Amino acid sequence: MEFHFLGTGSGVPSTSRNVSSLVIRFLQEKSTQWLFDCGEATQHQILHSPVTLSKINRIFITHLHGDHIFGLPGLLCSRSAQGATSPLFIYGPAGIEQYIQSSLSLSRSYLSYELEFKIIEEGIIFQDNSIKVETIELEHVMPSFAFKITEADKPGALLVDQLEELGIMPGPIYKRIKNGETIQLDNGLSINGNDFISAKKKGRVVIIAGDTKPITKMRKFSEGADLLIHEGTFRHDKKGHAEQFGHSTITDVATLAKESEVKQLIITHVSSRYAGEEKLLQQDAEEIFPNSLIAYDLMVHKI
Amino acid sequence: MEFHFLGTGSGVPSTSRNVSSLVIRFLQEKSTQWLFDCGEATQHQILHSPVTLSKINRIFITHLHGDHIFGLPGLLCSRSAQGATSPLFIYGPAGIEQYIQSSLSLSRSYLSYELEFKIIEEGIIFQDNSIKVETIELEHVMPSFAFKITEADKPGALLVDQLEELGIMPGPIYKRIKNGETIQLDNGLSINGNDFISAKKKGRVVIIAGDTKPITKMRKFSEGADLLIHEGTFRHDKKGHAEQFGHSTITDVATLAKESEVKQLIITHVSSRYAGEEKLLQQDAEEIFPNSLIAYDLMVHKI
Repeated sequence: MEFHFLGTGSGVPSTSRNVSSLVIRFLQEKSTQWLFDCGEATQHQILHSPVTLSKINRIFITHLHGDHIFGLPGLLCSRSAQGATSPLFIYGPAGIEQYIQSSLSLSRSYLSYELEFKIIEEGIIFQDNSIKVETIELEHVMPSFAFKITEADKPGALLVDQLEELGIMPGPIYKRIKNGETIQLDNGLSINGNDFISAKKKGRVVIIAGDTKPITKMRKFSEGADLLIHEGTFRHDKKGHAEQFGHSTITDVATLAKESEVKQLIITHVSSRYAGEEKLLQQDAEEIFPNSLIAYDLMVHKI
Repeated sequence: MEFHFLGTGSGVPSTSRNVSSLVIRFLQEKSTQWLFDCGEATQHQILHSPVTLSKINRIFITHLHGDHIFGLPGLLCSRSAQGATSPLFIYGPAGIEQYIQSSLSLSRSYLSYELEFKIIEEGIIFQDNSIKVETIELEHVMPSFAFKITEADKPGALLVDQLEELGIMPGPIYKRIKNGETIQLDNGLSINGNDFISAKKKGRVVIIAGDTKPITKMRKFSEGADLLIHEGTFRHDKKGHAEQFGHSTITDVATLAKESEVKQLIITHVSSRYAGEEKLLQQDAEEIFPNSLIAYDLMVHKI
């Protein structure tokens, strides 16, 4: 998975950070791309990235504040202008459909593809053979959600070297071995397929949280995740301010990462007041959770 | 007047041209700034210009297509975040209020200042002592308007040199002379104040047109204007395409400028298909109307 941080600022765009937006490119796993939040000028940021509008087939919205949604109508229209025909699924809190439909209809915008809305509540909101997305509700000044993306475990690979050592050469038999069948060989030997398959590869877990004050239930939700992407709008000296507006400090989120024992923390939604002070933010986070990164616009992170 | 071309492209933003937006700074005449159309990321373009959000006190919208309005909700919120308290007047076609109010209310955005909407029809839509704005309706695939901005004529200046030659020195008498009174001087001479005032300075006229196919009534509306700012989406080989989507070609608009005998033409709303071919567009225009300019993003033009 490749994460493209298109907008890493909070509230108002600045010359250094645009408002919220993140794309996951699944690379080998899926040809599609998923967009998380879509602040104004997300489509402009995409012009400076390898993200392709027509390949975005699912959009997840954490909450309806303008800095997370005002880029949606334009992005949807540009996806249409580029000739996309594949349906687009939009997952978001109640009100998201009304916002988009009223923007499109008042501007008389007609899309070349189908839009399908899924209003989110806590629980599993998407699942296919390879991936599952579930949500919990956070605590912000309006309904706001976190997404947990869990890959399905990958089946083990056939241990071809060991099979060849036993003189079992590639052919239809390999399929039966991979299915875990017990097979009587011509030489009288009996083998159990399961002995010739490597261990399952555990699917990765990624958490993408919307705006929120720190809440205890995020600890369990994030537990052991490979990657936690979370807002950290303020430094801790602005804790009162963060509390008032339903936000987390960098200290809050680094503490969450430590307590949840995630492997990597990326902090985004950073107030523009800290432009030029990114090193201090990094230090704040690392003091508590060493494997922290402060996101910046157009940053790419692979796991 | 200083014109800041914030977005000069059409339909979809590209790396070279953002979608429509233009600001007039009145400099000495007024401290306020007026915004014409507000495509997505207009507020981002403003960050690279001397335009100040809090000084924008009137916004004029030519029509409701997304590339002319999708930047409004974000711009209004950022004006608020910057602490603006002065009321903001928005002039636009029916639907503009609903678009903005629904975007603000669904995103739970609260502004620090009053919004006042004026739904436009043909005629005078704004007038104060120094300036008048009137509109006519154009022909596009949705209601679209052109604005004519007419400065009030400036009264002539007192011809101080000539008065001093006659021995009439500065004092309360100057006010009476400026009022055009006939005055008996101590030396027996009688003067007519009007003889000592220079000619009135004609107020400038600027036309800013929304998207439209060429229409004859624009000729009279633009007649003799100091500056005509008009869309020229396509070159003339795409005339059929322009016609179908209610647009003008560069040839169309240069012809309008010639027939209306305007002093200067600036062509904007240029299709991104012509990126790198600006010289050809310039030639197309100049062949018909030499005093033409193809606008580019962040271009500043003074009259």
